[in-house]
Amino acid sequence: MPTVKLWTDEEVSRDPCVRAIFDDIRLTRKSGFVNNFWRALANQPALLDATWAKIKEVMISPGTLDPLVKELIYIAVSTINGCSYCIHSHTAAARSKGLTDEQYSEFIAVIAIASQTNALATAMQIPVDAQFNVD
Amino acid sequence: MPTVKLWTDEEVSRDPCVRAIFDDIRLTRKSGFVNNFWRALANQPALLDATWAKIKEVMISPGTLDPLVKELIYIAVSTINGCSYCIHSHTAAARSKGLTDEQYSEFIAVIAIASQTNALATAMQIPVDAQFNVD
Amino acid sequence: MPTVKLWTDEEVSRDPCVRAIFDDIRLTRKSGFVNNFWRALANQPALLDATWAKIKEVMISPGTLDPLVKELIYIAVSTINGCSYCIHSHTAAARSKGLTDEQYSEFIAVIAIASQTNALATAMQIPVDAQFNVD
Amino acid sequence: MPTVKLWTDEEVSRDPCVRAIFDDIRLTRKSGFVNNFWRALANQPALLDATWAKIKEVMISPGTLDPLVKELIYIAVSTINGCSYCIHSHTAAARSKGLTDEQYSEFIAVIAIASQTNALATAMQIPVDAQFNVD
Amino acid sequence: MPTVKLWTDEEVSRDPCVRAIFDDIRLTRKSGFVNNFWRALANQPALLDATWAKIKEVMISPGTLDPLVKELIYIAVSTINGCSYCIHSHTAAARSKGLTDEQYSEFIAVIAIASQTNALATAMQIPVDAQFNVD
Amino acid sequence: MPTVKLWTDEEVSRDPCVRAIFDDIRLTRKSGFVNNFWRALANQPALLDATWAKIKEVMISPGTLDPLVKELIYIAVSTINGCSYCIHSHTAAARSKGLTDEQYSEFIAVIAIASQTNALATAMQIPVDAQFNVD
Repeated sequence: MPTVKLWTDEEVSRDPCVRAIFDDIRLTRKSGFVNNFWRALANQPALLDATWAKIKEVMISPGTLDPLVKELIYIAVSTINGCSYCIHSHTAAARSKGLTDEQYSEFIAVIAIASQTNALATAMQIPVDAQFNVD
Repeated sequence: MPTVKLWTDEEVSRDPCVRAIFDDIRLTRKSGFVNNFWRALANQPALLDATWAKIKEVMISPGTLDPLVKELIYIAVSTINGCSYCIHSHTAAARSKGLTDEQYSEFIAVIAIASQTNALATAMQIPVDAQFNVD
Repeated sequence: MPTVKLWTDEEVSRDPCVRAIFDDIRLTRKSGFVNNFWRALANQPALLDATWAKIKEVMISPGTLDPLVKELIYIAVSTINGCSYCIHSHTAAARSKGLTDEQYSEFIAVIAIASQTNALATAMQIPVDAQFNVD
Repeated sequence: MPTVKLWTDEEVSRDPCVRAIFDDIRLTRKSGFVNNFWRALANQPALLDATWAKIKEVMISPGTLDPLVKELIYIAVSTINGCSYCIHSHTAAARSKGLTDEQYSEFIAVIAIASQTNALATAMQIPVDAQFNVD
Repeated sequence: MPTVKLWTDEEVSRDPCVRAIFDDIRLTRKSGFVNNFWRALANQPALLDATWAKIKEVMISPGTLDPLVKELIYIAVSTINGCSYCIHSHTAAARSKGLTDEQYSEFIAVIAIASQTNALATAMQIPVDAQFNVD
Repeated sequence: MPTVKLWTDEEVSRDPCVRAIFDDIRLTRKSGFVNNFWRALANQPALLDATWAKIKEVMISPGTLDPLVKELIYIAVSTINGCSYCIHSHTAAARSKGLTDEQYSEFIAVIAIASQTNALATAMQIPVDAQFNVD
């Protein structure tokens, strides 16, 4: 259960500012479905506007990283932050962008080995090698 | 400072089991440099052996994900886990695998927006949409 | 589902030590409602006693920080620790202490930008400026 | 040591876009000192621009939460995320906004008790009370 | 809800590789019950195989740490990582290995005080004493 | 560098309240060495007093868990919380309580496999088995 109200389509339709953003979400994604994340942010219109603009710029605008790669990085961050919602929404997004079962298996294996070596390096407080210095 | 001794090359040379693994690290990576992570794990030969075998299998063996993509996922996990050592070693690894400044900028932007939306979704305890169900 | 039994009011009434603490919770908060956190801690009476004493001292006794401000700090900590229970209980507490929708929106925006810059500073391992030294 | 170059004032002066943002940071904060966070972000001008704009909007523009309260929330998030850099920069910022030793002591006590109860609630997987539902 | 299919016993029975591992899990644990963790990993047979082999070696093979002690360490890690699934499965495992209510109370108290002092030491960025150096 | 002053023995000697606690730390631990954690907390006498009382009760008073086991749980929590200070101080404490290299190797292996399965269970959002229900 959320700590804030999730806006229904009817409530959205009554607020021109929120409605314009929901329209843009639907248009950009070519889908009528708007997920709960945006329905929760609708309570904070300025944050809704800024967050959607940022997601469009970072995740949707073309760049040098493949859109699917960006989704995998997003899921990795969300997994370690323990954000159940974002794990689900971005795993679904990765699948819709063509993630195969084999790629997902390899992805899962990378976050598993990384988590393991993170714990080892932290537990033993291993000092960073001078060779990694970029200067 | 570490909680365990970091093995010098001389100490490694006196232990046949550890030396064999260090030789394989050098051979596999085509580099004489062996970083502190392995010098710390040398205190636990069984764990050293298993961890290097796993890293070779997951990060070095060919698969469906690009080696550079795997490094980015690794850095993302290490950043959220706050593992300074792994951030440094895998950012260096990503650069040696061709990471460009433009790709790094986009990568940084993805972990920034992901961390932000993770905090938002968690703070508002947004319920997962039924549409994300894989069944 | 919890890993321990949640004590009912009847079970509480049969244990004089636990009952005394529940009575004090009700009296201090001027409410008959005792939430599950305390019903779970009832299995460890010494910890129940110490935790309630600490909460009273830190969160309820008058000090120099406003009670609502303390609740916001509590929610911020709980959000980043990913503690669903504490996010809910302290968001409810903040609302009962007068948190407005506008304040909540600003609070949400602060934890979002902080999470973002935390990820950036950690990913780039930015060294602390000498100017921040308190000595 | 950072994973990216920290821009010196001379390097900044040669890039009109970065220089304009640094000028605005100095003007807005009424101080010649620009800390390393911005010198690292200078490598990613678009992210530098967006992050500074966001910090100005969220942390500096007047709102309903006191600027000092926002800094305390920022430090709380940074502490739990383990971001050494942000803990230092925002503790310094809080002090410059008037944080007293007594307030800092109370703040420290709140994040200590919150971290403790977060661990307890998570370890025992305490279910959220129906009474916390906002609907 | 999971992001992957959970294999039923019938599906397992049709895959000789996965079935052999499930048989070994049942045989090793002397129980017909195979929990969801393995049913999810069945989608990645190589990872299933490696993870079960590792769990057997680390958690089940005799060593110098008591099996119950290993479970407590496992629950401590899982609690701070906020992994609801692992908290439940390893608390159940600890109970089946003889964890008493009194031991659980003491365990809970240790993770509570550790979480508290972790937050304090991180918030105040306390420098490590030279005396803790192992060299 | 810390965000607060670390009290020297001379400063401690001038404050009767803080001095009494430092005396008790030295007496209880049978050592003249008082580590930086307490020298930082000296700025908040009430928190110093409460934290030391809690540490004595949880970590030093006899109970059903072995003192060394409690230290291992403490290090596990501190590792996942990424608290460098507490990892160092409690690894030193574990060694002084008799931790052997073999036990430390096994401990390290447990936190490594736990971190790995935590990441896997969270990434795949594996639902908790009904069999783990304690009711």
